[in-house]
Amino acid sequence: MPEFVYGHWPITEALRAQRRRVEQLLVSDRSEERGQIGRLIEMAEDMGVPVRRVQKRILDDVAESGNHQGVVLRVGAYPYVELEDILKVAEERQEKPFILLLDLLQDPQNVGSVLRVADAVGVHGIILQERRGVSITSSVSAASSGAVEHLHIAQVINLVNAMKQLKENDVWMVGLDIGPNIPPLDKTDLDLSLGLVLGSEGDGLRRLVRDTCDLLVTLPMRGRVGSLNAATAGSVALYAAWQARGWQGWAHARE
Amino acid sequence: MPEFVYGHWPITEALRAQRRRVEQLLVSDRSEERGQIGRLIEMAEDMGVPVRRVQKRILDDVAESGNHQGVVLRVGAYPYVELEDILKVAEERQEKPFILLLDLLQDPQNVGSVLRVADAVGVHGIILQERRGVSITSSVSAASSGAVEHLHIAQVINLVNAMKQLKENDVWMVGLDIGPNIPPLDKTDLDLSLGLVLGSEGDGLRRLVRDTCDLLVTLPMRGRVGSLNAATAGSVALYAAWQARGWQGWAHARE
Repeated sequence: MPEFVYGHWPITEALRAQRRRVEQLLVSDRSEERGQIGRLIEMAEDMGVPVRRVQKRILDDVAESGNHQGVVLRVGAYPYVELEDILKVAEERQEKPFILLLDLLQDPQNVGSVLRVADAVGVHGIILQERRGVSITSSVSAASSGAVEHLHIAQVINLVNAMKQLKENDVWMVGLDIGPNIPPLDKTDLDLSLGLVLGSEGDGLRRLVRDTCDLLVTLPMRGRVGSLNAATAGSVALYAAWQARGWQGWAHARE
Repeated sequence: MPEFVYGHWPITEALRAQRRRVEQLLVSDRSEERGQIGRLIEMAEDMGVPVRRVQKRILDDVAESGNHQGVVLRVGAYPYVELEDILKVAEERQEKPFILLLDLLQDPQNVGSVLRVADAVGVHGIILQERRGVSITSSVSAASSGAVEHLHIAQVINLVNAMKQLKENDVWMVGLDIGPNIPPLDKTDLDLSLGLVLGSEGDGLRRLVRDTCDLLVTLPMRGRVGSLNAATAGSVALYAAWQARGWQGWAHARE
């Protein structure tokens, strides 16, 4: 089955990453060949990707009401990796593993948004559960601004088993949770072989996932509304973890 | 002119905060009186607020395609405060000022999302520029999950003048900026009388706003995509600032 990537940035990143089979660039008949679209057409032609003009409503259909900005790329399936590949990325970079695990997050917008941050902080990979969780669809790709095209993402049958496998590889499982008796995330040294586990939008971590964690940390909250969006909480936690690692790999890091 | 607040959480917070004049609760004729809607009707009746059944399409119109979830509250204008009021909040809490300044952010979703975090970290107030910036519309209120109903927000004619006025009150202006020669935000002690200044989605801080800052900090980025959503960047910065203040005011803070 062909898949689709839509919007300027996601398409740019899919073409740059060259990880998916790229079949065709579809351009709306109402769009002019200049600006971002002009550049995408040029990029596609340089790579030998066929460019085809189609009616805008075809793009509307394909993008399922997402904002395609006049362009859709027809591609092969998302290139999921295996859990072992993620550990290999860490090893190749000679860094302690830094892995993100998503426990049943559902909303493509939230997932895309967290994955964009996961890219920004340089995680080695992401682990999702196949059943009841989210897949890397075109709306996740769009919401991530195309970050998923570069990220190493493994889809596993059972998240708890994946956590156990990581623990056997000396990766610490740290769950982000809510509760009065959980220490705030800066009181735990996150500069370790880290698997950061985020819960779902409504319910947080599932019981068995929580019990499989080595440590729990919480994000303090003081306000009147008393809750945070799951993507926001995940973003803050990812940054806290990278800060604890001394911004490792940052081009401008000063020793 | 009447204004409207829509959706379960924003309406709950508007009723709880009791800062706006509340005129009427409009409930969709297709919604049943149970769950969240039942609770809102009860809350409104307890407060003597008239409840009226209307056709769903009227709510659709009023909410301007926002997700009203079957309820809209007709209210008075948003209760903006003055800059001085924000300083007073800090004084009353006996805390060093912690103020958020938004330089021309436009997207209601982003602004709402940052304001929800501003509430979570307990800022004393927010300063927006009236012209070319965003106002606290019903979509901002919805995106903030109702946090704006509790927050102290000042709308000023000129952001640079407001910055200067805060500086005269010994508040340090710290701008979040992008650039290779700017220190990351954990290398600057943010535990000071703080005005955190966030730039707009596309362009960051305006030149004059940047020049008026006492300090600039940056959020490191390492990934392939190389940019963050403005709301995400702002959320991470707000949490970094609150962390630097030792989670002051957090109910579970341990000494």
